[in-house]
Amino acid sequence: MTELLPTIHDPSVLREYDRAQLKQLSDEVRACVLDNVSRTGGHLSSNLGTVELTVALHHVFNTPHDRLVWDVGHQTYPHKILTGRRERMPTLRQQGGISGFPQRSESEYDTFGTAHSSTSISAALGMAMAAKQKGEERHAVAIIGDGAMTAGMAFEALNNAGVSDCKLLVILNDNDMSISPPVGALNRYLAQLMSGNFYAAAKNVGKSVLRAAPPLFELAKRFEQHAKGMVVPATLFEQFGFNYVGPIDGHDIDSLVPTLENLKQLDGPQFLHVVTKKGQGYKLAEADPVAYHGPGKFDPQVGLVKPATAPKQTFTQVFGQWLCDMAGKDGRLVAITPAMREGSGMVEFQQQFPGRYHDVGIAEQHAVTFAAGLACEGLKPVVAIYSTFLQRAYDQLIHDVAIQNLPVVFALDRAGLVGADGATHAGAYDIPFVRCIPNMSIACPADEAECRALLTTAYEQSHPVTVRYPRGAGAGVVPHLTLEGLPFGKGEVRRQGTRIAILAFGTLLYPALKAADALGATVVNMRWVKPLDVDLLLQIAATHEALVTLEEGAVMGGAGSAVLEALQAAGVDRPVLQLGLPDRFIEHGDPTKLLSGAGLDASGIERSIAARFGAPESAG
Amino acid sequence: MTELLPTIHDPSVLREYDRAQLKQLSDEVRACVLDNVSRTGGHLSSNLGTVELTVALHHVFNTPHDRLVWDVGHQTYPHKILTGRRERMPTLRQQGGISGFPQRSESEYDTFGTAHSSTSISAALGMAMAAKQKGEERHAVAIIGDGAMTAGMAFEALNNAGVSDCKLLVILNDNDMSISPPVGALNRYLAQLMSGNFYAAAKNVGKSVLRAAPPLFELAKRFEQHAKGMVVPATLFEQFGFNYVGPIDGHDIDSLVPTLENLKQLDGPQFLHVVTKKGQGYKLAEADPVAYHGPGKFDPQVGLVKPATAPKQTFTQVFGQWLCDMAGKDGRLVAITPAMREGSGMVEFQQQFPGRYHDVGIAEQHAVTFAAGLACEGLKPVVAIYSTFLQRAYDQLIHDVAIQNLPVVFALDRAGLVGADGATHAGAYDIPFVRCIPNMSIACPADEAECRALLTTAYEQSHPVTVRYPRGAGAGVVPHLTLEGLPFGKGEVRRQGTRIAILAFGTLLYPALKAADALGATVVNMRWVKPLDVDLLLQIAATHEALVTLEEGAVMGGAGSAVLEALQAAGVDRPVLQLGLPDRFIEHGDPTKLLSGAGLDASGIERSIAARFGAPESAG
Repeated sequence: MTELLPTIHDPSVLREYDRAQLKQLSDEVRACVLDNVSRTGGHLSSNLGTVELTVALHHVFNTPHDRLVWDVGHQTYPHKILTGRRERMPTLRQQGGISGFPQRSESEYDTFGTAHSSTSISAALGMAMAAKQKGEERHAVAIIGDGAMTAGMAFEALNNAGVSDCKLLVILNDNDMSISPPVGALNRYLAQLMSGNFYAAAKNVGKSVLRAAPPLFELAKRFEQHAKGMVVPATLFEQFGFNYVGPIDGHDIDSLVPTLENLKQLDGPQFLHVVTKKGQGYKLAEADPVAYHGPGKFDPQVGLVKPATAPKQTFTQVFGQWLCDMAGKDGRLVAITPAMREGSGMVEFQQQFPGRYHDVGIAEQHAVTFAAGLACEGLKPVVAIYSTFLQRAYDQLIHDVAIQNLPVVFALDRAGLVGADGATHAGAYDIPFVRCIPNMSIACPADEAECRALLTTAYEQSHPVTVRYPRGAGAGVVPHLTLEGLPFGKGEVRRQGTRIAILAFGTLLYPALKAADALGATVVNMRWVKPLDVDLLLQIAATHEALVTLEEGAVMGGAGSAVLEALQAAGVDRPVLQLGLPDRFIEHGDPTKLLSGAGLDASGIERSIAARFGAPESAG
Repeated sequence: MTELLPTIHDPSVLREYDRAQLKQLSDEVRACVLDNVSRTGGHLSSNLGTVELTVALHHVFNTPHDRLVWDVGHQTYPHKILTGRRERMPTLRQQGGISGFPQRSESEYDTFGTAHSSTSISAALGMAMAAKQKGEERHAVAIIGDGAMTAGMAFEALNNAGVSDCKLLVILNDNDMSISPPVGALNRYLAQLMSGNFYAAAKNVGKSVLRAAPPLFELAKRFEQHAKGMVVPATLFEQFGFNYVGPIDGHDIDSLVPTLENLKQLDGPQFLHVVTKKGQGYKLAEADPVAYHGPGKFDPQVGLVKPATAPKQTFTQVFGQWLCDMAGKDGRLVAITPAMREGSGMVEFQQQFPGRYHDVGIAEQHAVTFAAGLACEGLKPVVAIYSTFLQRAYDQLIHDVAIQNLPVVFALDRAGLVGADGATHAGAYDIPFVRCIPNMSIACPADEAECRALLTTAYEQSHPVTVRYPRGAGAGVVPHLTLEGLPFGKGEVRRQGTRIAILAFGTLLYPALKAADALGATVVNMRWVKPLDVDLLLQIAATHEALVTLEEGAVMGGAGSAVLEALQAAGVDRPVLQLGLPDRFIEHGDPTKLLSGAGLDASGIERSIAARFGAPESAG
């Protein structure tokens, strides 16, 4: 059998394929995904799950004229392989290579950049509405997972779309519920829909009969709607104004193609419920889709292998350990995650304290206000949330937590650059956007040991505090397993030098120390952006000619600006060099190289300081 | 008949009242609301609509031990009147007086501060979950309107609550749909529920029979649930895991009290659908609930009277006029509002361009990503949103608009202090939280004429721009009715002085000019926070001894900090005084007094500058 994939440079050729060819192509795409991800690392389970759906969509719809919007977008490797990027797959998620998510700048087939969840229905509705306004015949399709469907903005979009008369198709890609434990009422409801109740079964039988005769399908649908009002339960999605079809098997080309073809002919908002299996077709991933969600490189024949040497402890693990220890000591502690149990290091906590663990689903807004409600009753909530996802709950942080000055701890993981996930996931803005809010404090631990201690300090406060720490491991300073904090709002001098003082906020303390050795500079570990240690700052300013601020975050409005503000408020004039992330989005790549590209490694810091304030005086 | 209200100092006495007394009390409370609001101004229609519900809740539930969380909270005047604040009602929304919203600091009966919509279910679930964890017997009740129910976070909370087994009661306060046109699928669905279908009617009949016998009620419920699975449509809320009861008449004490008493006895999440009428009991408000939503002072006998002299044109009106004019010129313009048609000045636009007007409901997240989708297709979306509500769509602004660099105009009304609505509605943070995001620009018009011109400039760009303008009227500079813009990113010198230069960002330009007259200072109208007019800044810095930055927004990370950053980047040392909003929340009050309290009127500005840089040199 001749391989089809090497002949495909764009998906137009798929439109001529028969079912057998589509099935063969699906197998080839699946093998291509597995082969590439095993070499580069990346998302696996979700991409194995969307192979047939992707093939069927590009077969039925006239892409890129018709718009496909992939929610989250980490399941778009099959889509990338079929839309001219097969040969670039080995560069996936690497600097200069293709992104792990859809990007408008990468391909005209990537109609909307995604990465955070639950945006697809809103974007696709916008596209559908634009087509209507412009009088263009065009389909817009949003493909959204059952997890992403729990986020509020997906419902906001359904609510708006359900009364529109756009050519909008929402495909719910429902991953087999038996794998991940369902969280929330919606997932339980979807499981019920899938459990093969009378209505769904009857509906599918009816449709399979009618598949061959599309015009009849429309008639049957009308009858069905009429009948439905009388005797059978309407689905949630019908109550939102959509025509609901499904659930159907998302790995069965023979179900997918005719169903999509039929739906394509209908007007108004359409909803297709597709059931797929994460990891489909690769037994190891099917058995453990969580482990194969985003693996590093591996041998497909062998599967994932535990590394021989224990990896360095990550900040995430430091947080997880602290959480358990503090919960053991203080019965008021409750921990909340918006669907990031593994990523936030809370597996152990859930096992030890199931009654005090709350996974609220992909629902950052609710997570924060729910925490505020808990805090009102005297509990001590810890919200574990990535810096980039706190952007989703910004108003709740202000309106529900800060204005009421409630003692909620925000443990901000992934603060700073995040590497392969790229600009969408960078935790670059939390210092500016939190700092301007009254009652909030911000701690920036320099290493693992400080992370644990500052979490304790944050927890001891009677007001809200964020503790921000980066992805991965730090300098490797092993935390003491006590629960002792560090002084609130106080920094420390770590290296005494002359002339120039580097004020480091967070983990860049370590490259700063290295740079300072070459420069003979003083290094201050500031630890807190807010409150700023103004006493220490003024003392340092009084004894040095120039200051350098350093942070893994946006310079605009960041910790360095807090230093400028404090100096001006005190009437102190000193030249200050602000080092941090520039005012542009930084794409995916190796985190070390990205930091160095932004001039935030030791040699970059040294170079910038020398360029601004001159080379160090010669020793002696 | 003896008046009851004067004898009520807290709601415990209500628990002993019989139905007749509860009805009498409701009438007295309604009269009290009308009397007070007509004297102070404030929210009227919504408060007239919640009188009986409030009386019934305090009668049935053991407040404050049981927790009432009022969504939005502008409907809590009856609650305030019954919880010890009747005599303070004349101070409503005035400086030092009681707030127009619930506030934890004001009363133990105000269990959660609200003002932005759709937070109540999350907060009440937190309280219910805390009670469960602490083993306390306590009810938590969220009272939420049908508008607020469309926001995503309400669904996030329902999704989480539906699988909890907390003592949580959600009351949907559904205002008569015939008044405001329904927006979105949910409201259409609620109208269907209310249209008296067989199921709802049958359910209510059954329940009214059983009211007298609570234990039977539980049994009947179980039977009903069983039967329901077979033949009748489940409501949306049941699909989320709630036990749904209703709709019932929210002005009928005889329906409310027994239903609440029954629900109180049930375990797990309960949902009560109550139908009320905005403005109930005051004919003028019933007839025009929008006009009486938030009136100023008026004579209840006469009703609202059009002011004899035309009021000054507001920034909102300037925006509305510009929107129509630009839409007339450019067919690509589309306008989006998250349920703020009146507040954002879009009534005229909707009439003129119905196909290009999108009210998406209270759904800020969706609004912004929907706009991004429209922009992808070559349309030019204008999102009209209050500064404080953009906080709800912060991630969407970053992830969907800024990263993709889409040309969306954000018209930020209510930027700065907002007066009677208080801290929750202040637009104090948009400069810091937008400024740190790459690709974004920020314009700050100084007056009405500039507002129109800068909207045009913003619209002409091929990247996202926010234009921020305050509530109400400005200096009164009448806009030219052309569609000419001002130069992008450029400021202008408005007054040439010596020694000191005031750099004004926005409408504080006018008090700055006044202060400068006394000080002999230069005044620069900066117009743009981002991009900052660095050329002009450096030129001014070179020719003056000291600079003053001025903005109606948070100092931390604001426009003044942008100036500090730019000076340092250029290696220029100048003393800079940053004037703006302090790092604390500013409560409700008269806007003029609030600004003056923050030192941002002419004399305050003059005082601050003299204190920092000395009094002006004597003339000559």
